[in-house]
Amino acid sequence: LYTREEVKRHRTPQDRVWVTHGTEVFDVTDFVELHPGGADKVLLAAGGALEPFWALYAVHSQPHVLELLREYKVGELSPEEAPPSPDAAQDPFAGDPPRHPGLRVNSLKPFNAEPPAQLLAERFLTPNELFFTRNHLPVPAVDPGSYRLQVEGPGGRALSLSLSELRGRFPKHEVTATLQCAGNRRSEMSRVRPVKGLPWDIGAISTARWGGARLRDVLLHAGFGEHREGEWHVCFEGLDVDVGGSPYGASIPYSRAVSSASDVLLAYEMNGEELPRDHGFPVRVVVPGVVGARSVKWLRRVAVSPAESPSHWQQNDYKGFCPSVDWDTVDYRTAPAIQELPVQSAITQPPAGAAVPPGELTVKGYAWSGGGREVVRVDVWTLWELRAPVAAGEELEIVCKAVDASYNVQPDTVAPIWNLRGVLSNAWHRVRVSVS
Amino acid sequence: LYTREEVKRHRTPQDRVWVTHGTEVFDVTDFVELHPGGADKVLLAAGGALEPFWALYAVHSQPHVLELLREYKVGELSPEEAPPSPDAAQDPFAGDPPRHPGLRVNSLKPFNAEPPAQLLAERFLTPNELFFTRNHLPVPAVDPGSYRLQVEGPGGRALSLSLSELRGRFPKHEVTATLQCAGNRRSEMSRVRPVKGLPWDIGAISTARWGGARLRDVLLHAGFGEHREGEWHVCFEGLDVDVGGSPYGASIPYSRAVSSASDVLLAYEMNGEELPRDHGFPVRVVVPGVVGARSVKWLRRVAVSPAESPSHWQQNDYKGFCPSVDWDTVDYRTAPAIQELPVQSAITQPPAGAAVPPGELTVKGYAWSGGGREVVRVDVWTLWELRAPVAAGEELEIVCKAVDASYNVQPDTVAPIWNLRGVLSNAWHRVRVSVS
Repeated sequence: LYTREEVKRHRTPQDRVWVTHGTEVFDVTDFVELHPGGADKVLLAAGGALEPFWALYAVHSQPHVLELLREYKVGELSPEEAPPSPDAAQDPFAGDPPRHPGLRVNSLKPFNAEPPAQLLAERFLTPNELFFTRNHLPVPAVDPGSYRLQVEGPGGRALSLSLSELRGRFPKHEVTATLQCAGNRRSEMSRVRPVKGLPWDIGAISTARWGGARLRDVLLHAGFGEHREGEWHVCFEGLDVDVGGSPYGASIPYSRAVSSASDVLLAYEMNGEELPRDHGFPVRVVVPGVVGARSVKWLRRVAVSPAESPSHWQQNDYKGFCPSVDWDTVDYRTAPAIQELPVQSAITQPPAGAAVPPGELTVKGYAWSGGGREVVRVDVWTLWELRAPVAAGEELEIVCKAVDASYNVQPDTVAPIWNLRGVLSNAWHRVRVSVS
Repeated sequence: LYTREEVKRHRTPQDRVWVTHGTEVFDVTDFVELHPGGADKVLLAAGGALEPFWALYAVHSQPHVLELLREYKVGELSPEEAPPSPDAAQDPFAGDPPRHPGLRVNSLKPFNAEPPAQLLAERFLTPNELFFTRNHLPVPAVDPGSYRLQVEGPGGRALSLSLSELRGRFPKHEVTATLQCAGNRRSEMSRVRPVKGLPWDIGAISTARWGGARLRDVLLHAGFGEHREGEWHVCFEGLDVDVGGSPYGASIPYSRAVSSASDVLLAYEMNGEELPRDHGFPVRVVVPGVVGARSVKWLRRVAVSPAESPSHWQQNDYKGFCPSVDWDTVDYRTAPAIQELPVQSAITQPPAGAAVPPGELTVKGYAWSGGGREVVRVDVWTLWELRAPVAAGEELEIVCKAVDASYNVQPDTVAPIWNLRGVLSNAWHRVRVSVS
């Protein structure tokens, strides 16, 4: 009989690789290299439960898989093993939902995590459980029955929409869209010079099929016009609040909000399911082609305004600066809020520093560009794969770089785009590997 | 008494700097360094007539300027001096219009020329006489009285519009737009590895205030709809034809042609004057934010079509490729036609290789991005200027790089964007100078 803690200590071939399934414990060290999906995939589950991973890869639901696993059984979990219950009264994050163990956690409270790079390019749509999560505050607990979305601002009627009204009054529109955090690939900037921010690797980007009401339809229903004179914005507020009660907030230009080509959604579905709690249940904004920070989750309020959102995250964060600006000299008023993101790509396989066998090397990755100028958005997020012959003893640097529909290219190197906040890190992605 | 040929031999301080005004000849060598607008500006007129330059800079129309000039008089032009008349019957380019002598000519037939770099950033709007000229064929001689513009295609009425109908039936719309040739800065690519194309320096880009009918208004008037199902294009044909009678042609997506935000014009005015012959008299297309090649001059036909223009210049030119594609392997079908151009900038002053005096150095240039994306660091077309202290003996490399509203940046170096046709050359612009 083993505790979960004991199982957790077995995460590498050196320490033996243990996993659980139900209440059974297995030592799969000798199976790792035999895994048809690759050794690296088994190791994602090392020290923990198999079920969350098997749930994503349906091939495991065949009976012979479990038979094969049983050959490696070494024991059972202790009967008293149960998930730990944190002290909800003390911890504002105690109500956060359970997460998939495959996520690479950059911050637990608030929860910020990215999918393992090698899983990211496996499927065109990122499974909900592995979709990168960027929370700024505790996850609010929302009762869908009493949920109301407020819509207001000069020139329109104030609306208070229940979830069923939002679903029933407006046509459901579906969009495949990629969201990317402004800080994706920040860790590469930190290697040039330290920056402030979560140490995202290349996984703060994911793609889903979103379903919901068009923001455009809701705005027109409330009587806001197709065109407005001058500069207007649509401000969003979330139900996630800080200790002082201030909500997360952000805004986008009115022209984008009301444009039919921009496909801005008030989404209640993600890959055909209701929104998971970490991704904004019951309603979130999805702004295709724009930095994830504007796709406000747990949406409580939509306000048409002559000014951008007064939120900290609109005014004093998520802006780009040149490398010579530091924390002593930065003036956030001088830079525009990040909206559309520039062209991006990364290598998801092989991982950096890997020793790969001679022969044919398969390289995989993703490429994407912001802007929302494409009519067919699914074409904007591209998974790519390359096979090349490699010889024993070679040291390789694999470089990927993308070109978007405006022929914008990624910058060659990180140093010239370094900025104090470590955002907009979109230089060529380089991975060094050795062949042996 | 001197001939124009004799005057033309005096273009440098070593050979003495001669200029003409009317029929008078002046040796202004000793005035060059005294010129309030800078020595380099006087030298633009060296060996030729002052009038075309004075016409652009109204400060010269004061009487004391001519008085001052007379101090340098050395003679008169021979009475038999008259402009040479080429044999019109033999030369298809014999009917081309006269051009401003300040233009830097890259090809005489067809005429391709750019403004001197140091004049480009002097004014926000480029004077018509100095606007870069990119002709593919001889300039057609168009009689404005009999001119007709054909508009046709499935789903609309065929129109045949006279110039007065185009002016009278549709509201005049004005747009300030920058046009850039895809080959701007090609000469920098050639230094990496030879390319095929005109050796443009940094001047194949200019800005004007354009006036004309919106293409959108003309299309809607002809009954074409605001939205069309599927992929449609608007094809343009010019009155300029090759020896086989085929016209210059190009196309843009229908969505851009009909969008009110895209401001596509059928222009008949340039900076408040009727279009000069070199720039498409009497009517040309102006597509803001898009490669100049789609802004078809001497427009004779607008055709809505399910396919892009079959023209050579749409199908087999003006496309980008990666550096590994050469003339043996290129397949033009594999790349999209260039439409929106990526972010660009260049240093117009000081010129490369200049020896500049110690003290405060003024650096000037332009920055621009396609697709209507503003340049946020250095409006869409931005002239910039920087002053910095420099010390005697220093060797400087001045680098400029722009960032657009989608935070796309220019690539660091030329080699990774090199392509066989030398288009899309938008790496950082570097100018080396010495301080002495």
